[in-house]
Amino acid sequence: MSRFANPSPYGTHRVIEPRGVLPQAAWKIDNTMEPAANEILIDVRTLNIDSASFTQIKQEVGAEPAAIAAKVLDIVRQRGKMHNPVTGSGGMLIGSVRTVGAALRGRIDLTPGDRIATLVSLSLTPLQIERIKTVHVERDQIDIDGRAILFETGLYAKLPADIPETTALAILDVAGAPAQTARLVHAGDTVVVIGGGGKSGTLCVYEAKKRAGPTGCVIGVSPFAADCERMRALGWADHALQVDARDALALMRSVAELTGGRLADVTINCVNIANTEMGSILATREGGRIYFFSMATSFTAAALGAEGVGKDVEMIVGNGYARGHAEHALNLLRESPALRRLFEELYA
Amino acid sequence: MSRFANPSPYGTHRVIEPRGVLPQAAWKIDNTMEPAANEILIDVRTLNIDSASFTQIKQEVGAEPAAIAAKVLDIVRQRGKMHNPVTGSGGMLIGSVRTVGAALRGRIDLTPGDRIATLVSLSLTPLQIERIKTVHVERDQIDIDGRAILFETGLYAKLPADIPETTALAILDVAGAPAQTARLVHAGDTVVVIGGGGKSGTLCVYEAKKRAGPTGCVIGVSPFAADCERMRALGWADHALQVDARDALALMRSVAELTGGRLADVTINCVNIANTEMGSILATREGGRIYFFSMATSFTAAALGAEGVGKDVEMIVGNGYARGHAEHALNLLRESPALRRLFEELYA
Repeated sequence: MSRFANPSPYGTHRVIEPRGVLPQAAWKIDNTMEPAANEILIDVRTLNIDSASFTQIKQEVGAEPAAIAAKVLDIVRQRGKMHNPVTGSGGMLIGSVRTVGAALRGRIDLTPGDRIATLVSLSLTPLQIERIKTVHVERDQIDIDGRAILFETGLYAKLPADIPETTALAILDVAGAPAQTARLVHAGDTVVVIGGGGKSGTLCVYEAKKRAGPTGCVIGVSPFAADCERMRALGWADHALQVDARDALALMRSVAELTGGRLADVTINCVNIANTEMGSILATREGGRIYFFSMATSFTAAALGAEGVGKDVEMIVGNGYARGHAEHALNLLRESPALRRLFEELYA
Repeated sequence: MSRFANPSPYGTHRVIEPRGVLPQAAWKIDNTMEPAANEILIDVRTLNIDSASFTQIKQEVGAEPAAIAAKVLDIVRQRGKMHNPVTGSGGMLIGSVRTVGAALRGRIDLTPGDRIATLVSLSLTPLQIERIKTVHVERDQIDIDGRAILFETGLYAKLPADIPETTALAILDVAGAPAQTARLVHAGDTVVVIGGGGKSGTLCVYEAKKRAGPTGCVIGVSPFAADCERMRALGWADHALQVDARDALALMRSVAELTGGRLADVTINCVNIANTEMGSILATREGGRIYFFSMATSFTAAALGAEGVGKDVEMIVGNGYARGHAEHALNLLRESPALRRLFEELYA
C-alpha cells in the first residue's frame, strides 16, 4: 500500500507547503520514492538544468563543478525538487522507467526500462539525488544517480533510437514552438519570426515555411549579422532582416517595405529579451495573430500596447505543450538533414 | 504650418524623452497645443482617472481635493500627459472636438463640436490643464478646463445622445470585454466567467449567454455571496458559483461538477487579482480557449502553468480594443434595460 491513499493526477498529494497549491507553486514537496498508484518512478541519469537557473547558480557560487553540485544538492534537500528559488525555473531530466503505477498500466505506452525525457519542469518534479557524478558546466547538464516521480498528468517523450540523446534533448526542450507554428500558419501567409536565428526561432522559421508554402513569405528577424547569415544559408526564410525588435518603428518599417505595406499575417516572438511586444504588434496586420513564445513577454505591455495604437490583433500566450509536440519536433530532425546537422553542431 | 513637419500616426513626433519610443513608453511628451495635420484637438471637460492611479495618488497625498489637484497638475507639468509614474496607468477623457487636422478631414466621422470620449489611455495623450474645477473623489473623475491631442491612430467614441455621459463612460471603459466575448463564444458553448459579478464580468456573462444561447451554459464565478446573488437575480448566468478562483483545484472541481466533467469550452478571466491563472487553466477543457482580460495576469504563470499540467489550451492576451467595440458596448445598454439600470445605479 502506498502512503498516498487518494493521489491527485496533478500531484497535489505531495505538496507539503503551502497547502492547497499545485506542486509547481509549492515551496516544498514530498520526494519520498514510494510511488502512488498513479505515479511513474524514474531512474534518473541526467538533469538538464534550465539555462536561467544554471546561469544564476554559477553567478552565486562560481563555476567550479563541486560548488555547483553542492548548491544543487542543497536546493533539492530543501524543496524536494530542483526548483531554483531565485529564478523560479527548473529544467528537464532524462532517465529510464523503473516502475509504472498499477492505476496507469495498460493506459499509457511506458514499460520498465524505457528511456524517457520528462517534458514537465523540474520545478514540479519530486527528485532524490543519491550522488552527483559529473557537472557538465559548458552545457548546463548534471549526470547523477537518483530517482524522480512523474505525475499522472506529467508529460514525457520516449527517447528515440535513431537520434543521439543530447540532440533529442535540445529539440525536446523547445518542442512546443514548431507544433504551435504548424497550427497557426496557413498556405500563403506572411510570417514574421522575431528571433528567427535562435534555437526555437530556427524551428519556427522551418515549420512556417513548410506551412506557408511557395506562395507564402517567411521573414526571420535578428539584430545579429551572424544569425541573418545563417538564416540565409539555411534557406528557409524568404528574407533575413537584421533589425533590433526593441525598435518597434524600425521593425514595422522594414516589414512594411518587404511586404508592400501589407505586414505580417502571423508574428511569432521567440526572443528572450524584454520590450519586443510593441515591435511584434506594429509588424502585424490588422486582424493578424501574434504568438508570444518568449518568457520575457510582459502581459500588460502586450495588452496596453495593442490598445494604445488601436490595433485589432489576437495575441496568444505561448503554451509549451501541444498534443503530440515531442514526436512532431523529433520528426523535423528526421525529415531535414540540414536541421539535424544544425542541432548536432550548435545545440547538443 | 504646424511645427510638426512629418507627423507619425502613432504620435512619435511628440516624444521628447527617451527618443525613439512610442508615446506611452515615453517619460515626457510634447504637449504644445498646436496640432499637427493628422491630429485632433480636444477641449477637455472631464478626466476619468484610472482606478489604480487614483488610489495611488490618494495614498500618497491624501483624499483632499486640493492635494489631489496639485498632484495631478504636477504630473502633467512633468510629463506632458496624465501618466501616473508609480502605477504606469492613465485613464480616459471626455470633451468636445475643437479642430480636426487637415490630413484627416473627410477621412473620419468627427467635426468640431462633437462630444467624444477618448478610448486610448491618458498615459499617451498630450494634455494641458488650464484650471482644475472639481475633483470628484468618490468616482475618480476630475472636471477641468484644458486641451488634449488625439493621434491619428487614437481611438475615440462619440458620446451618444440617449445615454447619460457618466453611464456611457463607465461602459466604454471596459468595452473590449463584451466585444471579445462575442467573438469567442459560439452556440452551445459552456463558458466560465471568473469575476462574473464585477463590471466587465457582468458584461461578459450577458454577452456569453446571448451567444451560447439556450443550449449553452454560462457559469459566473465570484468569491463573494453578494456578487453571486446579483448574478442570480440578473438571470443571465445559468449558474453562479461562489468559489475563490485562486484555489485552482476547488474551482476545477466545482466546474466539473456542474458540467458532468466536461469543463469549460471558453473561460474568460475578468478579476483584477493575482494567481488565478491556474484556476482558469484547470477549469477549461483540453482544446478549449482562455481569455485573460485581467491586467493582473502573469504571462509566465499562464505559460508554465498550462505546460506543467500538460493542458493543450489556447490562452489569449486581452486586447482592450476590437473593431467597433464602443458601439457594441453602448448597444448592450440600449437592448437591455436591466443592464442599463445596473450601470446607472452601480457604476455611474
